[in-house]
Parts: sequence; structure tokens; C-alpha cells
Amino acid sequence: MTLHAPIDFRSDTVTQPDEAMRLAMSAAEVADDVIDRDPTMRLLEERAADLLGVDATLWVPSGSMGNLIALTAHLRRGDRFLAPRSAHVLDHELGTAAWLAGGLPHALDWAGPGRPDPDDVRAEAGADGPYYTLRTTLLCLENTHNSAGGTVTPPDEHALLVAAAKDSGLRVHLDGARLWNAAVALGVPPAALTVGVDTVQVCLSKGLGAPVGSLVGGTTTFVEEARRLRKMLGGGVRQGGVLAAAGLVGLDRIDDLAADHANARAFAKGLADLGWVVAEPQTNVVLAAVPDLEVTLTALRHLGVLAGPMAGRVRFVTHRDVDADDVAEALHRIGSVS
Amino acid sequence: MTLHAPIDFRSDTVTQPDEAMRLAMSAAEVADDVIDRDPTMRLLEERAADLLGVDATLWVPSGSMGNLIALTAHLRRGDRFLAPRSAHVLDHELGTAAWLAGGLPHALDWAGPGRPDPDDVRAEAGADGPYYTLRTTLLCLENTHNSAGGTVTPPDEHALLVAAAKDSGLRVHLDGARLWNAAVALGVPPAALTVGVDTVQVCLSKGLGAPVGSLVGGTTTFVEEARRLRKMLGGGVRQGGVLAAAGLVGLDRIDDLAADHANARAFAKGLADLGWVVAEPQTNVVLAAVPDLEVTLTALRHLGVLAGPMAGRVRFVTHRDVDADDVAEALHRIGSVS
Amino acid sequence: MTLHAPIDFRSDTVTQPDEAMRLAMSAAEVADDVIDRDPTMRLLEERAADLLGVDATLWVPSGSMGNLIALTAHLRRGDRFLAPRSAHVLDHELGTAAWLAGGLPHALDWAGPGRPDPDDVRAEAGADGPYYTLRTTLLCLENTHNSAGGTVTPPDEHALLVAAAKDSGLRVHLDGARLWNAAVALGVPPAALTVGVDTVQVCLSKGLGAPVGSLVGGTTTFVEEARRLRKMLGGGVRQGGVLAAAGLVGLDRIDDLAADHANARAFAKGLADLGWVVAEPQTNVVLAAVPDLEVTLTALRHLGVLAGPMAGRVRFVTHRDVDADDVAEALHRIGSVS
Amino acid sequence: MTLHAPIDFRSDTVTQPDEAMRLAMSAAEVADDVIDRDPTMRLLEERAADLLGVDATLWVPSGSMGNLIALTAHLRRGDRFLAPRSAHVLDHELGTAAWLAGGLPHALDWAGPGRPDPDDVRAEAGADGPYYTLRTTLLCLENTHNSAGGTVTPPDEHALLVAAAKDSGLRVHLDGARLWNAAVALGVPPAALTVGVDTVQVCLSKGLGAPVGSLVGGTTTFVEEARRLRKMLGGGVRQGGVLAAAGLVGLDRIDDLAADHANARAFAKGLADLGWVVAEPQTNVVLAAVPDLEVTLTALRHLGVLAGPMAGRVRFVTHRDVDADDVAEALHRIGSVS
Repeated sequence: MTLHAPIDFRSDTVTQPDEAMRLAMSAAEVADDVIDRDPTMRLLEERAADLLGVDATLWVPSGSMGNLIALTAHLRRGDRFLAPRSAHVLDHELGTAAWLAGGLPHALDWAGPGRPDPDDVRAEAGADGPYYTLRTTLLCLENTHNSAGGTVTPPDEHALLVAAAKDSGLRVHLDGARLWNAAVALGVPPAALTVGVDTVQVCLSKGLGAPVGSLVGGTTTFVEEARRLRKMLGGGVRQGGVLAAAGLVGLDRIDDLAADHANARAFAKGLADLGWVVAEPQTNVVLAAVPDLEVTLTALRHLGVLAGPMAGRVRFVTHRDVDADDVAEALHRIGSVS
Repeated sequence: MTLHAPIDFRSDTVTQPDEAMRLAMSAAEVADDVIDRDPTMRLLEERAADLLGVDATLWVPSGSMGNLIALTAHLRRGDRFLAPRSAHVLDHELGTAAWLAGGLPHALDWAGPGRPDPDDVRAEAGADGPYYTLRTTLLCLENTHNSAGGTVTPPDEHALLVAAAKDSGLRVHLDGARLWNAAVALGVPPAALTVGVDTVQVCLSKGLGAPVGSLVGGTTTFVEEARRLRKMLGGGVRQGGVLAAAGLVGLDRIDDLAADHANARAFAKGLADLGWVVAEPQTNVVLAAVPDLEVTLTALRHLGVLAGPMAGRVRFVTHRDVDADDVAEALHRIGSVS
Repeated sequence: MTLHAPIDFRSDTVTQPDEAMRLAMSAAEVADDVIDRDPTMRLLEERAADLLGVDATLWVPSGSMGNLIALTAHLRRGDRFLAPRSAHVLDHELGTAAWLAGGLPHALDWAGPGRPDPDDVRAEAGADGPYYTLRTTLLCLENTHNSAGGTVTPPDEHALLVAAAKDSGLRVHLDGARLWNAAVALGVPPAALTVGVDTVQVCLSKGLGAPVGSLVGGTTTFVEEARRLRKMLGGGVRQGGVLAAAGLVGLDRIDDLAADHANARAFAKGLADLGWVVAEPQTNVVLAAVPDLEVTLTALRHLGVLAGPMAGRVRFVTHRDVDADDVAEALHRIGSVS
Repeated sequence: MTLHAPIDFRSDTVTQPDEAMRLAMSAAEVADDVIDRDPTMRLLEERAADLLGVDATLWVPSGSMGNLIALTAHLRRGDRFLAPRSAHVLDHELGTAAWLAGGLPHALDWAGPGRPDPDDVRAEAGADGPYYTLRTTLLCLENTHNSAGGTVTPPDEHALLVAAAKDSGLRVHLDGARLWNAAVALGVPPAALTVGVDTVQVCLSKGLGAPVGSLVGGTTTFVEEARRLRKMLGGGVRQGGVLAAAGLVGLDRIDDLAADHANARAFAKGLADLGWVVAEPQTNVVLAAVPDLEVTLTALRHLGVLAGPMAGRVRFVTHRDVDADDVAEALHRIGSVS
């Protein structure tokens, strides 16, 4: 047991709403969004649509629901969809792409970190076969890619993948749970990373610090269907403006993510200096290879450093509730026993 | 167009969080509920379990999700379930009982307002037939029953229905979106109305005034499965304590519903005095039969009185944002053109 | 225990292929229907399309699969469909309309035996509501209606129902498992009973005596989709011509059903003469009301008269393996103990 | 266009029932299998159970339905299952493992032809994680493996895979559409290849030459559930004995498959002698790598040699309707233009 207050690198989902965000929530103008549209939700949805370069967006209680709605809208029963190996929609959404959205996934190997090869997209999209053959109709991308270690797909690589999909008649959904991190890391506006996609999902409750909420966007027609699907899944809320207000504050803080990235780099460098095998972080995720994952996670916890498992490695995530001093302290604790 | 500020009787879902509730939300202690359990959500869930007389409850973003989770947990693929005619799970949840929960509904005629005859439950539950026959496995009750006009099922009638179900090997789910209203109207504790049920769903966002949220409860085992299903459906939120705090305030206000009921009775009496054909309200819902529903709703809207359609009649719902003066004013507006 | 060979009135599904039918099966020209189309299946499908007045039909292994394919093709997730109370798709297909086809059923009361009131169709079809309201998109009819006692819907009543559906924007599926019986009883061609429907299912394995098989038909586009759905459900067979050949023989025997109907009338009259409470049969089904269903079925079985339960009554079905002498003998056996 | 009668290597599904098989079909004793059990189906099901070393089997109209029933029985909603890359359940069943059975597939790389590495099975089965993590519950094997080229998994390799699955808490389903070929090639009884599996599916309509039908087997409890699922999917047939009789004849002909294997080896050797790049066949499938698949298939068709595509290569399948002379003739035709 540690005497230290724990430093929590398990996920950027642990971020707490700060005073400004709580104040905005408590002051939010609200209405019954099912029957009238809540004004603060509407404001958030419109502002996010502008940022993402799509016609419209819809607030949803979680990124999982945003992805699920998009997949359900895109896939007919039994359609196959492509996604990079270890994508969130494959490994971290409890199989709902299959039993709820009705799609059969096919995992593509990575050409770059967390992204497939456009040639593989073309090869697997296939031609229209006879009636008794599988139809492949959708490509899911993920930027940043979580289990690859928060890696970014830059606009040019994104464009090649979208072109491969479109040439092959596939739709494209982008899981952008941490798209804000990718944009900040690349120094481009978020809309530069959604070019050509049919739908995109972004989270407000990770690095941006909102307590609850994500957005799923695309054409106006898609958002109309998404609104119905959200109601079906039980995500149609009433005075959601209290949460949307937090999301609006979050959108003002996209640039703050640069600090998380700097902290991640500093932490990775510190770990490397201590002899750890660490990948160079592109955003706010640090992955470290260790001989025994469970042993390491337990040892870290005893030191007051909380981390989690990801694809067989230790994952540390920096976020707005961990500052440079926390990083230094965490390295100090880890170094004390090395 | 009216010069009056509209008086909104469309639903008790339009209630706005007041200052005390907003303050509680902004002060809520929170944590990542997916990986740690949020302390305020936990407090709400435990307090609701006590009130409802069940082992445990789970916060969900909507009553629809609560019902959907319960039905999904109870029904095997293709199972038939029984529900009173015009139940919310039949008519107002977009068919999700079928395509998501996998159940085939069978509507039972009403013996009393909004509740079936126990003998019909026994008759329809049927015996176990050969393998190629339909299995009936669940009875859904609704108290108060929305489309019957907010009608209550008292404990003795409830007990007869539960006994009929249990004797026939059926599970029982209670859609208690407005169970609080039933308890207040009957002068019994809420737990008196859940005796014998396997699962129950209650709403915080209707008469209790919370902006978002419902609870679904039952055994500890059920709640464990419900937690997984909630994550699947996209209802697993992070710092949900900001909403749970509003729910806790709402639970303190159950007794306030008596005022809504008094207002409903006063409104119904006033309408009757004006010559309307109105059922005597048992809780906070007033149903009025009119010759042409659309014409009446439009005329009311022009007078600044907002109502909605329900099962071919005009539905007026009283709630904490409509007081006795509002009721008097609404009657005045309506009377001015009668 | 009886010394008599049992006379089997349980269903017309018990009919055995006779020598001519077996000969046709053994001589059938066949091919791999998945990759080439089997010539005998094609012949059957084309001949049935002509008889039914539809563009095309598709062989399926069972009437249940034919209905399931039609419903799956017509219904989007969560759509509501209308069907007469106790319809086969509601009560006798194991809930697959819900969990597989994704539809929420709504049972309509009967205006005539086994058929709804066109006004109820219009009322329940409803107008397009806001996005959060249920969509009703399909009317299922059944002719003859099984649990009503093999009752027929004549062309004029059929036309009124189809018109009500079409005026309301509903599609129409006709479960015509025993459509041949209706046509013979009414003295009209089968196509007179499919006017205006989008899809129709007919069985070869009931009164027509084929061992296995049904057909589902509609537009060419529908049949293309049906072929894919059949493969999905596992009904895509290879050298199905061996079964289709039996179906072709069956189609030559439609007029023979008149004898079954005459036998049913004679049997009903005989039962009435013995004091039974029997409905006048319209086709090949005799329903008798008895004080205790299980006791009566057991007693009949001991007499060597096999019958089954249907909607709380005893159902006797006449078919090509029960002739006038068998009917007389059955009446004799029953009379011997009355 | 060719003057030659085409020699059909597209699949062993094209086999036609011969006179003996047709005679057996026409003489089959039959009954309504839904309500009574058909005696010939029962005989087939029992004999297959003996051959396969399982408690019971169930006739189904297709191998796809057999696999679908097994997966549906094994998988809870959202469960992940493992299968070797390019397995039939992944690539050739129209995504039904996902939208109907509700499972999320994960493809395993091949350690040997068409079979995964037991260590990968253990690694991917994973430990029980928290409630919000994917559950992996099933391993699907395929023997022979179709798209690997009809390759066999011998008993010792099979045992290692089953042990890896069982140690990890996984169930095992074996897609044995061509299990008979594997048994003959290995010189072992079929039951030697099902040791430890929970369920197995075998086809009668491929090399064994029956026109229609497969069997799915396992414990008595599984077969009871399978019978219900078969009815749900529309595969519950009436006098199926006419088809089961063909299956019984097929089971007498398992040893004949050795001739198909010899023909495949001769054909592969002949192609290699002509300079083709051909894998050594283990059973009745010959895969040839060609520069342009479509060009080659068209050229072959013009020569009167029918083949099909499989995983980017030309697939030739030998079967009982292609004899040694046909193989020689096909090689002659191909050689004539080389």
C-alpha cells in the first residue's frame, strides 16, 4: 500500500469536470430534447459540425453509442466491414458491431501504426460477386488509434485510405474518439482529418474533460436516422443541455491537449531513461513493453501509479488531471525502485 | 399566435432542473463509473434500491433503455411476452422489444385501467408445448399506465397479477416510469408496488424533475448483467454523478407529486365544468375525448396551452413546472373561447 | 389402446407422397441450384408464378421460411406490422417475426373469420409521426386462415383490405399456406386472391401432398433479395429438383382439394348429428368446441381418431390420405361411444 | 464455345443422385417429421451419430444452416468466437455468424494449412476480464479446410487444438462439411476427428452425392435446442425421409471418396507437368496459382473445363461425377493449348 496519492494514468476518461465546466453545466439553458430540441445541445451539435466539417452532428451518451449508431446506419444485415486490427469497434465494444449493427468484421493488418494499407482495402472490398457471396460495404478508420498507442493518421494517408474505400464502393466511418488529439499533434484543424468520410464519432469525455458525452456526425439525412437509432438504443435524453454545456467548454480546450502530449513525451523519455522499453508517443498515450504485465501493473499500483493493460503492454494515458509535476513525481516513484 | 407565455402540459418530461438541483449537480463528487464506479451514482443506485425494495439498481440514461435492458435480460430469442394493451414497451419504444430484445409481444386486454386480467395472464402463459410451439416467459406491467391516463394499479391488484404470472412460470418486469406517482396517489411506499417483480424501471426525469436519467433494478445478478447490457447499448457513461446528483434531489421530492395530482384533478374538474369529456385523473394525467384531435391541439396551442395526443385523446400532464395558478390560467384561456 | 388403424386428422401436413409423385421425384432432372439454377425448381417456380399472378417465385423448404423471408425483406428494424389475431406469423412461427425479421407485431381483431376490418387497418397504419414514434409498414393477411378454422377471404373482401393497406402506405404480405384451398372453395383462380399483394407464400406440402416445400413470390426484385435471404437462413439447397418435381405434381392436383372440402363438410355434419358443437367448415378444417380439450383429444386417440388442438378447440383436418370411407369410419368410431 | 461436353470441377456440390440413390429416395418410408419424427430421417440421424461419435444428430437442409444453428446455440449476444482465417463460417456464409448468431468473429492465422496454432487459441481466449470487456467463448475448426485447398487436420493436431480451447474455457464447433474426405485421406474413422468437440456439422450433398442435406450433431441437449432453432430458421421439413434416404446411401459410399482423392492427385500432377503452379492435394481439391484468375477461368470454360475461384486461385474439385477418364480428358484439353 502506498502513502502517496495515486497518479492516475489509466485513461483520459477519468478526467473530472473542473469548476468552470461545472459552472457552465449549472447555468445551461435546457429543454426537452426529444420533443423540442434542447438549445444547448443544439448549439454544441452545430459547433461540432463546423469543427468537423460535416453537415450535422448528434450528441450521444458515449462513443460506443456513436460508433454503434453509425455502423447500424451503414450496414445491411450480414454486410462485412473492414477495420484495422485491434480497432476499438472490434475489440472494445462487446461485439455490438455484430449482434446489434449486424455486420461481420474483417480485420486488416496495419501498414502504418493503427492504419491499414489502401491496397488491402481495395483487395478486400472485392468486386460484386453472385448473390451468395459476402458483401463488403464499409471501412472503419480510427484516428488516433487507441491500441496502437494513440497513433495519428496524417491527412495524406487518410486521403489515400478514403480514396481506396470510395473507389471500391465502400462507405467510411471514422472513429475519432481522440480525433482532437490527432489534430493537435498534426497541427491541422479537425476537419482536415474527416475529409471524405461518411460519418465520424468524437468524444467529449476523454481529453476534453467533459463528464459524459460524444457526438456522431455526417449528412443531415444520416443525423436524422441517427436520432431515431439513438432513441431506439435508449440514448434519447431530455434536458441534455446540462451535459452539452460541459461539452461546449471542452471544445474551447482542444489546444490544451498539446500539454498532455508534451507530458506523454516527457514521461516516455523518463521511462526510457529508467531502462523501460517504450514507444515514442505521438499523442497522449505511452505504451511500454514489460515481461509480465500483471506483475508490473500491480507493482505500479503499489507505488501509487495507476496504469492499465492494452494489447499486452502497459498503457499510460496523460490528460488534463495529470500535470508536469505529476509526471515527474510518477517517474520519481518508479525510479525509486528501479 | 398567442400573446401568452405557453403553459406546457405536453409531458412531465419537460420539467427543468431548478436551482437546488443544479447546485447539487455542480457539487457532485464524481469518478469514472465504467472503471471505478462513480460515488454519486452508487449512492443514488443504493438509495433507489432501498426505496424500491430490490437488491440493487443501475442508472441508465432513459426509461427506454431501462425497459430494453430488462427485456433483453429476460427474453431468449423468440420468446413471447405479455403486456397490457397500449403499454409503453409496445407502442412507444420503436419496436425495440422485438428487434433488440428479441421478444414477440402479445397485448392483453384491460380488466382495469391499464392492467390485464390475471385469468388472461394464466390463459395466455399456456403450458409447455412441444418444441415447435411459442414460449411465453414474461409479463410486463406498467404502473402508472401512461396511455390509460396515468392510472394506478393498487397493491392487491398488483399481487394478483404477479401471482398469476409466477404460477404460470412467467417472470415479471414492471415499467414504473411513473411508479412514484402511483405510490403517492395510493399512499403506499414505492416498494409496496414492486412486490414479487423480477425487475423494475423508474424514471427520475419525469415528475421528479431530474434532467436525465432512470434506474433499472432487480437482483444483484440481474444488475450485473444489466451493467454489461448498458455498456453494449452505449449507455455506459463516465462521470455520471453530475446527473445522479440531480436524481438524488429528485428522490427527496417524491411527496411533491401530490401537488401535481391535485392540479390534475382541479384541471379536469375545470374542463368538465366547461363541458369537456374528461376522465377523472388518478395521478398527474388528464385525458380528454374530443371530436377532432388535431383541431383541438392546434386551437389549444393558439391559446397558449400545450398538450399532446395519446391514444386518440388529448393528454394534459401536470408537473412541478405548472402550478395551481397556471392551471387556473389555462382554464381561463380555454374558457375564453368555449 | 385401439385395435383400429388410426385415421389421422391432425393436419394436412401428414400427407404422404404417392407413387406418381415418388416416380416424378426419382425421374427429376436436377442441377446445383445455388450456382446454376436447378431446371426442375425453375420450372416449378415459373409455373407457380403464373398461377399466383406474380412476377416470380422462389422455392423454400417450409412455409415458415417463406413468411420469414417476406417479413425480413419488408421490415426495417423495429417497424410495426399488422396481422389478424392468431395469425400463423404471430402464434406459430416461434417469434421469428420479431427476433429475426425485426418487426413488432400488432394483432387486429377479426371483422370476418380470420380477417381484420379495413377501417382498423387504416386506423392502425397511422400517419407519419415524429422521429420517435413507431412506424407501421406492413399488413400480413392469411387465406385460408388456419386458426379461424380454414376460413376463406373472398376476392372482394381481400380487395378492400389491400386498398386500406395501400392507401395507408403499407405493404401487404399474404400467408397463403392454404391459398389453394381458398381458391377451390371460392371457385376462383389462385391469382384472384393475390391481387395487389407485394408478396405471397404458398405451401406444396399440405393439401397438395408434396413431402417438402413452399414457394414465396412477388416482384423479380423481391425474389432476388429472397434468394439471398434464403441462402442466409440456410435454405439454399443444391439438387432441389427432386423435391420440386413433387411440387409440380402437387400443382396438378389443386382441384382434388374439393374432395377434402366435401369430406370436411360430411365430417362436420356427422359430428353435429352426434351432438358436437361444430362450425360449418369452409375448406378442409373442422373446429369443434369441447368442454375439456385434453380429455377429448385423448379419448379420440383411443378410438383411433387423431386430431389436434387449435385455439382451444379440437381441429380435424381432411386431406388426400383420408377419404370418404375414412370419414364414415371415424364418425362410426366416435358415435360408438357417444 | 466448346464442342466438348464440359467437365465440371467447380464443386463436389454439383454431384447428381444416381439411380440407386433415386431408387432409395422413391422407396423411402416417411412421416411428418415435425409432429411425429420421420423414420428415415431418424435412421439417418442415428447412423450419423454413431459414425461421428456424438450422442445425436439432426438433419438440416444445408451445411450453412448446420453451422448457423451450432453458432447460435453456443454464442450469447456479442460473444467473440475464433476461427481459422478464411474459414467457411467467416467468408462464405453471408455474415450470418454475426447478424443471426450474434457473434463477433476473430480470425486466427494458420499454423498449418487451414488450422490455427494452439498457442494462439490460448492467447486469444484470454482471461475473464471486467464486465466491459469482450468475452471469447467458442473455437470453430474446419476439417477439411475448404479455402486452404481441402487440407486435413490429423487427429493429433486436432487434439492439441481442442485441448487449447477446453483449457481456455472455449467450446468447440467443427465445420466438417468435408469431414468424410479428411477421414478417408487420413485412414481414420470420422469419429477420430471429432474427439472433444461440442458440435459438428457434416454434409451429405458434397462428395457423398446426396442432392440435399447436412447433419449437425452433439449432445442430446444440443440437438433438442437445434431442433427448435431449425424450426425457427424455416428448416423444419415434413416428409424429409425422401432426402434422408439419399443421405443413407451416401453414408455407404464414404470409402468411394478415395477415388476422388486419387483423381485429384492425378489431375494436380498432370497440371504440374504442363507447367502449372499447383499445390499437392490432400483430398479432392486442387488449387492452382495463375497470373490472372478471370482470364484463366474463362479460357478453361472455353475448353470445356469448369473451375471456380477460391481465395485468389483456381479451384478444381474432384467428385463422383468426374472419373479418371474425365481427368485425363481435361488434362488433354488444357494441354492442347499450353
